[in-house]
Amino acid sequence: MSADAFNPPSRLLMGPGPINADPRVLRAMSAPLIGQFDPAMTACMNDTQALYRRVFETANEATLLIDGTSRAGIEAVLVSLIEPGDRVLVPSFGRFGQLLREIAERAGGEVHVIEAEWGEVFTPERIEAAIREVRPKLLALVQGDTSTTMCQPLADIGAICRAHDVLFYSDATASLAGNPLPVDEWQLDAVTAGLQKCLAGPSGSAPTTLSKRAVDCIRGRAHVEAGLQGATHAAGGGSRIRSNYFDLAMILDYWGEARLNHHTEATSMLYAARECARLLVEEGMPQAVARHALHGRALVEGVRALGLQPFGDQRHRMHNVVGVYIPEGVDGEALRRTLLEDYAIEIGTSFGPLHGRIWRIGTMGYNARRDTVMTTLAALEQTLHQAGVRPVAGSGVGAAREVYADQQDRTGES
Amino acid sequence: MSADAFNPPSRLLMGPGPINADPRVLRAMSAPLIGQFDPAMTACMNDTQALYRRVFETANEATLLIDGTSRAGIEAVLVSLIEPGDRVLVPSFGRFGQLLREIAERAGGEVHVIEAEWGEVFTPERIEAAIREVRPKLLALVQGDTSTTMCQPLADIGAICRAHDVLFYSDATASLAGNPLPVDEWQLDAVTAGLQKCLAGPSGSAPTTLSKRAVDCIRGRAHVEAGLQGATHAAGGGSRIRSNYFDLAMILDYWGEARLNHHTEATSMLYAARECARLLVEEGMPQAVARHALHGRALVEGVRALGLQPFGDQRHRMHNVVGVYIPEGVDGEALRRTLLEDYAIEIGTSFGPLHGRIWRIGTMGYNARRDTVMTTLAALEQTLHQAGVRPVAGSGVGAAREVYADQQDRTGES
Repeated sequence: MSADAFNPPSRLLMGPGPINADPRVLRAMSAPLIGQFDPAMTACMNDTQALYRRVFETANEATLLIDGTSRAGIEAVLVSLIEPGDRVLVPSFGRFGQLLREIAERAGGEVHVIEAEWGEVFTPERIEAAIREVRPKLLALVQGDTSTTMCQPLADIGAICRAHDVLFYSDATASLAGNPLPVDEWQLDAVTAGLQKCLAGPSGSAPTTLSKRAVDCIRGRAHVEAGLQGATHAAGGGSRIRSNYFDLAMILDYWGEARLNHHTEATSMLYAARECARLLVEEGMPQAVARHALHGRALVEGVRALGLQPFGDQRHRMHNVVGVYIPEGVDGEALRRTLLEDYAIEIGTSFGPLHGRIWRIGTMGYNARRDTVMTTLAALEQTLHQAGVRPVAGSGVGAAREVYADQQDRTGES
Repeated sequence: MSADAFNPPSRLLMGPGPINADPRVLRAMSAPLIGQFDPAMTACMNDTQALYRRVFETANEATLLIDGTSRAGIEAVLVSLIEPGDRVLVPSFGRFGQLLREIAERAGGEVHVIEAEWGEVFTPERIEAAIREVRPKLLALVQGDTSTTMCQPLADIGAICRAHDVLFYSDATASLAGNPLPVDEWQLDAVTAGLQKCLAGPSGSAPTTLSKRAVDCIRGRAHVEAGLQGATHAAGGGSRIRSNYFDLAMILDYWGEARLNHHTEATSMLYAARECARLLVEEGMPQAVARHALHGRALVEGVRALGLQPFGDQRHRMHNVVGVYIPEGVDGEALRRTLLEDYAIEIGTSFGPLHGRIWRIGTMGYNARRDTVMTTLAALEQTLHQAGVRPVAGSGVGAAREVYADQQDRTGES
C-alpha cells in the first residue's frame, strides 16, 4: 500500500468521458466549506439553480443537482416518476438505452423496449407508433449515447408525448452543452446530465430539471421522512417512492423554500457544478454547441484523411464524440496503450457489439479545442504507422487545419 | 442571479457536521482527472481501499467508496442486503435510527423498531432480547447519532449477532475516527461512513466495508447489467437488487479485479476520500480517537463552567459532539445567529423532540483542535452575556485550559 500523496500523471483525455476538467472547476472545488443552511450556502444553491436553468434553457423552478454521478440522476428521475406496474417505453439505440431499461425495471416499471441498430437512431414516427401501442406513462430516451456516438433527434418528440399524455424524460449526460437541448422549447418533462462530458467538470454531480407535469407526478407520491415530522405517511396518495436517497419529492423540499433537511449537500461538488454552469453561461449555450460542432468536425475530417472510417449514421453523430473503425490487422487495445504510454493521450474502447471493432474519440468540454484535436491526430498518425498502417504523412492534421481555416474564412474568427 | 465566482465567507463550523475540511483534502481535490481504467486510476482506487481498511481496522477485501453522501452508503448497504420481506431489527435512539428504519422499509424489509429515549442508548441485553423475539436477518444500528449526540456501545453486539446468525450493520457516519470502531474485532458485517465529520473532508463520498458474510449475501443477488453482457438474469438465485446505482454486487465488480464498468467514478471525491484516510493513517486511529476525546472533554468542561448543562447520558456521549441545553429565557436561534454574524462560528440547532431545547456543538475532524474549542467558548461566553445570561467571565475557557493542562501533565505533550 502506498500512503504517498496522489500525484496523477499528465493525461489528455480524448475518450468518451470523463475528460480533463477545466482548471477553473478544479480550483472552485478547493473553496472552503460552509454550513448547509448558512445563508451564503442557500444563496449559492439558488444561484446554481438559476445557472442551470440557462444551461437547460428552461424556466423550470425544479432545476437542481442530485448528489451522485450521472447515473444517480437517471435513477432519481426514474424511481421518482415510475410507480410499480407503470408502463414505460424505452427506445434503445445503445448501451445507455439498455441502462434506462434496467433502471426502470428495477424501479418496478413494466418496461417496453424498441431497438434501433447500434449506429442508428429513431424516427419520430416510429416512436409515436410505439407510444400508440404501449400507451406508456413515461417515455425514457437517451439523447446522446456514447456507446454508439449517436444523437437521437428530440425536437419533435415532446409534442408527440404531450399529444398522448406521456411524460418525456431524456438522459442528456453525454450530449448536454455539446448538442442543442432547449428543454422548454422541445417540451421535455425531465432531463438529467453529469459534469464529466461537455460540462468540463468531474463526475459526481447530476444536474437535473423537471417540468411542472413531472413535479406534479412526484408530489403526488410525497412522503414525510420519519424523524423530521414524527410521522410516516404518504401525503399525496401515490405509492411511496422506493428510494429515500433518490426521493425527488424530498430533494425538491431540500432545494426549495421549505429547505427540509435531506442529505448533507456534497458542497465541493456543488461548487464544481456551479463553476461548470458559469463557464457555459459566460460562453453562451449556442456558442458552446458551435464549438463542439467545429472541433468534432475537425476531428472527423482528420480521421477520414488518415484513412479511417467513422462509425454509424453520420447525420446523427453527436458533435462531441466519434466512433472510428479499427483498421483490419490492427490490435486496437495495443494501439490505445501506445497512445497512452508514448503520448499520454487516452482514447476510448467500446462495449457490447462494438467491442474490438471501434475506438471512440471525444472532443468535449475543456478538451473541445484546436490544440487537443491537432495533437490527437498527430499522435494517431504516428501510432497507426507504428502498427503497420501507412496513412499519408500529415494528412490528418492537414484535413483538420482545413476545417479550421474554412471556419475562419466564414466567421472571421480564429 | 449572480454569475460571479463563489467566494464563501470565512466560517468556523462547530456544529454536528459538516465541518471545515482539512486544507490538504481541499488541495487533493484540485488534482487533474485521469481516465477511469487508467492504470494510475486503478492503482489509486486500490490504495484508497487499503487505506480505508486501516481506518475501519479491518481485513475486509470489500472495502470501497459509494459515490454519494453518507446517506447513499446507508442505502447501498440496506437495499443490497435486504430482500423484500426480510425481517430487519432497528434499535433507534435518535433521528438516524429513524432514517435506517425508513430506508429499510423502502427497501422492502419487514422492519421492527425498538426505541430508546433520546439521550440514552441500548444495553446488549435489550438488543439480544429483541433479536430473540424478532429473529431478524439484519440488525441495523447507528453508532453515533448526532441528533442526540449519543454513542451506542457496539463491542458486544457483534458476538450476539453471530450467535443468532444475524447480519450486523452499523452507520458510523458521525462517529468513525472520533470514537473506537475496530470493525473486525467487534465482528461487524457492514459499516458505512461519510467524509464530513471526523474524517475532515467534504460530504459526497461514503466509505463502506463489508465482511465476507455480507458479501456472500450480496453475491447471491448478483445480476448482470443489460448492455454489458447482452443478457439480463439474476446469477445468484436471490431476488434482484432494487437499485442499479446502489447494487453492491455490481459495485464490488467495479472496485474488484473484474473492473466491470458501473458508474463513472467521482474522481475528485475519490481524491478527497483518499486524502482523508491518509491523514488518519498518518496520525494513527487510536491517536485520532484520543484527540477527539480530549477536545470533546475540554468543550464539555467549558460549557459546564459557563453554567450550561450537557444533554443526555454523558457516559455514552460521542467524543466529537455535545448537546447543550439552551438556558431558560434565551432564544436559541437568535444566539446562533449572533455567533454566526459576529464571530463567524456555526453551532448546530436540533431536530424533532429536541428542537428549540438544545444546541449541538461539535469538535471533529480538522476542527478537533485547542484553538477552535477555546475560540468557541470565548464567543459563547460573550453571546450568552449579550442574551442576558451572566456566566462567570473567563470560566469557559478557564475550564478548557485546565483539561488541556491536565492532559499535558499526564502525557508530557502539549
